[in-house]
Amino acid sequence: MYGRIRMSKEYRASGTRDDRPTGNAKFLARRNEIVDLAAELFARNGYAATGIRELGEAASLARGALYYYIGSKESLLSEIHDRVMDPLLEETNRISGLDASAEARIRMISDVLLHQVCERHDHVWVFLHEYRALVGERRETFRRKRAHFEDSLAALFSAGVADGEFEIDNIQLTMLAFLSMHNYTYQWIRRSHSLDPSALSKLYCDIFFVGVASRGRAARG
Amino acid sequence: MYGRIRMSKEYRASGTRDDRPTGNAKFLARRNEIVDLAAELFARNGYAATGIRELGEAASLARGALYYYIGSKESLLSEIHDRVMDPLLEETNRISGLDASAEARIRMISDVLLHQVCERHDHVWVFLHEYRALVGERRETFRRKRAHFEDSLAALFSAGVADGEFEIDNIQLTMLAFLSMHNYTYQWIRRSHSLDPSALSKLYCDIFFVGVASRGRAARG
Repeated sequence: MYGRIRMSKEYRASGTRDDRPTGNAKFLARRNEIVDLAAELFARNGYAATGIRELGEAASLARGALYYYIGSKESLLSEIHDRVMDPLLEETNRISGLDASAEARIRMISDVLLHQVCERHDHVWVFLHEYRALVGERRETFRRKRAHFEDSLAALFSAGVADGEFEIDNIQLTMLAFLSMHNYTYQWIRRSHSLDPSALSKLYCDIFFVGVASRGRAARG
Repeated sequence: MYGRIRMSKEYRASGTRDDRPTGNAKFLARRNEIVDLAAELFARNGYAATGIRELGEAASLARGALYYYIGSKESLLSEIHDRVMDPLLEETNRISGLDASAEARIRMISDVLLHQVCERHDHVWVFLHEYRALVGERRETFRRKRAHFEDSLAALFSAGVADGEFEIDNIQLTMLAFLSMHNYTYQWIRRSHSLDPSALSKLYCDIFFVGVASRGRAARG
């Protein structure tokens, strides 16, 4: 399997990858199908255990044709990560800039995040289980994006403290607690059929902002 | 790799497994070392990608000797799951029976859970990533234990509602939100060095019970 990955690296190094007609709509549509298939296979069987041959069989493509579309197994993994991270970052940037309370903005990000977790379940599964398989520049890019997302969320919690909206001792750990509650949802969401991501987001945020204890609930009205 | 697993099943089916001196302290100590090594390898490289040969090399044992200690690769995986689940269930049963408020008992379970996540990090990583590799009776046992743990926790939230301690609309989802916040910690805890599990447990529970919003915080004193 790793022999195949090395081969694909040589393929990329030759520059052929940049010659592919990535702007072509038909090419991109087929490529998207292959990335979806890969996410499904990686989620079901694991990244290391999924060979290029199985990917080719699932996509009904010979090895050469598969390389034409994907470049390498690792570029597939990288694309799966981008598909989770990029829309999330875009939405987070947009929401952060809105003229709304910190709580309102965090609630919006919660909603976007849970829609990702529920609607891109295979991608999120691969994202959370296999990010350590990314190496070199791809690993750095992933880390940079993750840090950007976490920093944006932490900045909203800080803004809420500055405005007197929140009382938080440790912004970083509070942000990580918030993300943990959301991210882990991928582990059990398939056991809870037809759960609406927006309803779940409201439940999480109500807990996170006002808690479940009755004392003080009346005062919070 | 799978050929080897099948072989080990035949080995077990022959009854040889039951003849091993499992009560022997030296045998058990060596076996524990092998399970620890396996957890480390499975966490680092994945269960499917880790062969019996690598396990043998890491433990400096020939294949026959390795089978003598572990029975099969899947029995190792099962044991890793038991090592996370069994102490957790034992503590949860003990704590559930204590004469204390629901909040106090849930805080104790939170503390036990985070100690597991932090101190048995490799085991928890394998537990959360590879439980789907368990099959047949082992899978059923895992599911039964997980359901028992989740039901015990849900029962404490219900008791808190019945006593007027908590205001909760959906006990099941609230329990899963609580577990999600805790369980996902394994993903980032190694980035946060020297974090005390008990301090983190207090932070999580303070959020979960009273929230981070300032409104009403005064009333909650």
